[in-house]
Amino acid sequence: MSATALIAGAGALPRLLIAAAPEMLVCQLEGFEALPGAEVLRFRIERLVPFFDALAERGIDRVCLAGAMQRPRLEPEFFDARTAALVPRLLGAMQAGDDATLRAVIGLFEEFDFEVIGADAICPDLVPGAGVLCGTLSAEDQRDAARAAEIVAALGAVDVGQGAVVARGLCLGVEALPGTDAMLDFVAQHRALAPAPTTGVFYKAPKPGQDRRIDLPALGPQTIAKAAAAGLAGIAFEAGGVLLLDRDATLRAAEAAGLFLWGRSR
Amino acid sequence: MSATALIAGAGALPRLLIAAAPEMLVCQLEGFEALPGAEVLRFRIERLVPFFDALAERGIDRVCLAGAMQRPRLEPEFFDARTAALVPRLLGAMQAGDDATLRAVIGLFEEFDFEVIGADAICPDLVPGAGVLCGTLSAEDQRDAARAAEIVAALGAVDVGQGAVVARGLCLGVEALPGTDAMLDFVAQHRALAPAPTTGVFYKAPKPGQDRRIDLPALGPQTIAKAAAAGLAGIAFEAGGVLLLDRDATLRAAEAAGLFLWGRSR
Repeated sequence: MSATALIAGAGALPRLLIAAAPEMLVCQLEGFEALPGAEVLRFRIERLVPFFDALAERGIDRVCLAGAMQRPRLEPEFFDARTAALVPRLLGAMQAGDDATLRAVIGLFEEFDFEVIGADAICPDLVPGAGVLCGTLSAEDQRDAARAAEIVAALGAVDVGQGAVVARGLCLGVEALPGTDAMLDFVAQHRALAPAPTTGVFYKAPKPGQDRRIDLPALGPQTIAKAAAAGLAGIAFEAGGVLLLDRDATLRAAEAAGLFLWGRSR
Repeated sequence: MSATALIAGAGALPRLLIAAAPEMLVCQLEGFEALPGAEVLRFRIERLVPFFDALAERGIDRVCLAGAMQRPRLEPEFFDARTAALVPRLLGAMQAGDDATLRAVIGLFEEFDFEVIGADAICPDLVPGAGVLCGTLSAEDQRDAARAAEIVAALGAVDVGQGAVVARGLCLGVEALPGTDAMLDFVAQHRALAPAPTTGVFYKAPKPGQDRRIDLPALGPQTIAKAAAAGLAGIAFEAGGVLLLDRDATLRAAEAAGLFLWGRSR
């Protein structure tokens, strides 16, 4: 029988997954606030290989990495010899950026014979597929979503943000380091430039080539509030590529604000 | 001998060109505020072919299109038969976007045997080539400019903005419809996310494939003030691809603010 460990970072996602599968072993980096799992195992990056051993001893063969992880500081005195041997690879990946770091971490788990699974394997409702979840969208909205998807793909190719807003073909905002909320605030501020009121689609997708098993972009009630304040018609996202956190509250908020939520096929 | 007509839109550029070449015939769309040219010829889009005739009668064989032009409303009763025959082409281009409209207008001038020249042919100082105009740039600044140039090229390919801000490799902002000033204000607002104070390069370039003879993006003293407020180290731009309006004031402002200005070779 297969047993799963949750490698939990910060944010709402780990708690949602623990609620969906309370039998999972929960693993947290030292220093994070304890999660309410049945059993919590603490680990350190400096002792990653002994941590892999501990997982195997408990019969774990699948892991799910979920939640935000900041790059930890490394304390030289904590390293064991086998983990120390991995450091050059890890440092090289860290210097090549967040995506490379995550790919390297996934690669290590796989080398040690763990299957890495996505959050949707534990809780399929978290990652909606194709289809309209609420509201209605027009042919114009579909065209705006297509143009925004094209812009996000172009940006992703140069490793920039995962979102853009398009209204009747005009690009009102593009996501960068400050993130989704900051971009939606920016669009709200410059809303007067839009060609008509209550037009425009916020589109969200993972970066092209991103491993869909970790670090998917997320939508939640806060996104709905910001999109409504920006005067948009709705939110589209890549089907199977975005986490819908707090689904009920998000759908209620979207319906109350008159926004559509649409999982768009690639 | 060659005689040049300036087809003048709004903004500072037409006045700068008239000051540099006061002998030019100045042509303005009906309804624009009169410019101080030696001679001003008014024209209407609905009577474009008679306007071409009027230019040829005056011995004009070169035209320079300069300054912002909004898409005019067309009044059916003003059309002459020859211009009316061009309408399907012009409307098709207008519906395909600003770039297509400009290409169509250039194409029409050329069909009627006018050479279309850029503002730099009249006033070379307006379009700086490669080299540092003021301040000093570090190897890090050069890397930031290279990354920003890559982002702007990716965006240009999907017909979005002409600028981006990168600080130590991180993209702090990307230009969209609201324009340069709005993006620099956005970066100022989210400056705390930057990896270090007084880092970051704002890079500006024309869209890839854009006709370099018209509608170049512009930098001026206002850009310097906004970039300084955003805490940047400097401004880089594509050599030969950006108008430097009010060069003296811009350089003075950049020097006072401690910003570099760098024309970067493609």
